Amino acid sequence: DDPAGTNLHEKIAVIANNSGIPVIGPNTFGMINFQARLNASFTPEFSRLKEGSITLASQSGGIAHLLGFLAMRGDVGFSKIIGLGNRLNVDFSEIIDYLMDDEATRIIMLYMEGIDNPTHFLAAVKKHQHKKPVIIYKTGSAEKSNQAAKSHTGSMAGKPEIYQGAFSQAGILSLNSAQSLLDTGKALAAAHLPTGDGVAVLSGQAGPALAACDICEAYGLNIVDFEPSTQESINTFLPPLALRTNPVDMGPAWYDASAQSGIIRAAMNDHQVNAILLLTMFASANANLLEELSVFLTESKPTKPIISCILAPPGIWDESIRKLEESGSLVNYPTPERAAMTLANLVKYRSLQLRPTSDSKG
Amino acid sequence: DDPAGTNLHEKIAVIANNSGIPVIGPNTFGMINFQARLNASFTPEFSRLKEGSITLASQSGGIAHLLGFLAMRGDVGFSKIIGLGNRLNVDFSEIIDYLMDDEATRIIMLYMEGIDNPTHFLAAVKKHQHKKPVIIYKTGSAEKSNQAAKSHTGSMAGKPEIYQGAFSQAGILSLNSAQSLLDTGKALAAAHLPTGDGVAVLSGQAGPALAACDICEAYGLNIVDFEPSTQESINTFLPPLALRTNPVDMGPAWYDASAQSGIIRAAMNDHQVNAILLLTMFASANANLLEELSVFLTESKPTKPIISCILAPPGIWDESIRKLEESGSLVNYPTPERAAMTLANLVKYRSLQLRPTSDSKG
Repeated sequence: DDPAGTNLHEKIAVIANNSGIPVIGPNTFGMINFQARLNASFTPEFSRLKEGSITLASQSGGIAHLLGFLAMRGDVGFSKIIGLGNRLNVDFSEIIDYLMDDEATRIIMLYMEGIDNPTHFLAAVKKHQHKKPVIIYKTGSAEKSNQAAKSHTGSMAGKPEIYQGAFSQAGILSLNSAQSLLDTGKALAAAHLPTGDGVAVLSGQAGPALAACDICEAYGLNIVDFEPSTQESINTFLPPLALRTNPVDMGPAWYDASAQSGIIRAAMNDHQVNAILLLTMFASANANLLEELSVFLTESKPTKPIISCILAPPGIWDESIRKLEESGSLVNYPTPERAAMTLANLVKYRSLQLRPTSDSKG
Repeated sequence: DDPAGTNLHEKIAVIANNSGIPVIGPNTFGMINFQARLNASFTPEFSRLKEGSITLASQSGGIAHLLGFLAMRGDVGFSKIIGLGNRLNVDFSEIIDYLMDDEATRIIMLYMEGIDNPTHFLAAVKKHQHKKPVIIYKTGSAEKSNQAAKSHTGSMAGKPEIYQGAFSQAGILSLNSAQSLLDTGKALAAAHLPTGDGVAVLSGQAGPALAACDICEAYGLNIVDFEPSTQESINTFLPPLALRTNPVDMGPAWYDASAQSGIIRAAMNDHQVNAILLLTMFASANANLLEELSVFLTESKPTKPIISCILAPPGIWDESIRKLEESGSLVNYPTPERAAMTLANLVKYRSLQLRPTSDSKG
């Protein structure tokens, strides 16, 4: 709202556009490009991030910092982090066009407050026909946020329902928190996409299985009845009194990596099962479990996603989990609820993929 | 469902009851009592937990382990952790009676799947008339969870709506995830309870403020219009173009601890403000901010709660945040959404407190 600033912004825009120079910003913290080993931001600590295949384009420097620091703590890797700021001539539409062709970017993650030309943005996404997952976290649903967004980056946040509907039509998966955006990006970057909504919940303890099942059912996942051959196979690993149907309480075999491997393999071979939720809390009795299970998981090269919550006191299992994630065996989260919610988001993304975009002819 | 086990359970119950011996379990991982320096669990690592004033009674050993490990990572302290297991003669009702009189317990945290006699439990809670906060996470809302709960600890999980209504009537705050239970317990143990729903959102960056505002409005917090004197005071610390109304974007003064202290003080003195959400992401420009802000926050001894999301790369600010939490200045969370949600839960707990319990005569 500063006339002097607006004038300067316009002047630079004319020069940049006439010269064909894309300008990131102004009012940006900068950008990081891990392939180019470039940290052109005012936060040198971003260089500590792991390199990966997710690119974040953010309308807010604060949210980019939040996601970056959460990623450092959650071991999520980035390809690029770009602060769009006041979007002189590089807006969400332009960055989508660039990122869809950028080989180092496999997942496009967006943080949005509001944009001047949503139609232009949605057309840019649709044009690329689900070539890469686009996931978004948009704030500004609240009245006060809406006012604040206008002041922050000069754009009205707008009616949330209208944005949500448009995102779905364009095949964009919308998430409702910074943590959920990062959790889902991590899984999309690392895991196979489930080919359906059937899930097997395999847990070392019953309580975490219940917590996961509540989320699964609330968000449309199908906790399948196993095929008879699957159930027979699982029954050989657990005593009759155990909870052997889905969800499976692997507790009676929690010290026994070969039994757990057998149960995972049986569930993996079930045609109804599209993904596995694997939940295991550390205890003295299962202290060696993860090391032994790692051999099986790394060798079995699962083609169905395993989303896990494997949790121990700090310093125990951390390195094993990191290796399992690196080998592509599973994607891990610190709570059963976040693991289940992330799996639900993968299934939701797949359903968006299957839906023809509203203006496609195919 | 094992007749031999049921017989043995009954025999022990008779002996225990005749001798007046309360028995924790069977089918329990044990218990931890930090005052007695007793770790009678099968997980020696629980001894690493910080001592605090929260006691957890859990129907599931897996969830107790989950919460314990999350607490180690989130710096939450416990007084006792008790695995109720199959509840021979110590059920939720009996543990409530014990904990209400236990001086070392200030917050009672429960994990429940389902119980045989909910009326008995609710009566036990109501009897103590909000003497201590009781917060609960109950699973078993899903059909599959309900079946699993029955198999796990022999009790039907039951209709979630009935449980939720009964919890509210008894003044019990119900949370919907393990993380939310722990977040809320941490705040109840550490912070003053807000005396109303008015909140000031003070943020070093606009994006995190928007994320927090969306949660605040969705969960019934009131992002107040500041009193004129408050607004005038805040205006002296920020340039005219900044977002100076609530939510306040302190970004233009993000290197300036004295300006931020002044803004926090002004908001704290506003009669409409019952709590402050303080959001600050690290960047090079504000690297020294937290150390300087700490002096003000520690000396000002706020009587209104400050719920914060102050986040930096690992190793930066961690120690400062820990000290601020220990001094009682604020309670910190890793995302703006979790900070805002926790504040909403504090306000909700207070509204439960104000409501007379359904059978009270007062």
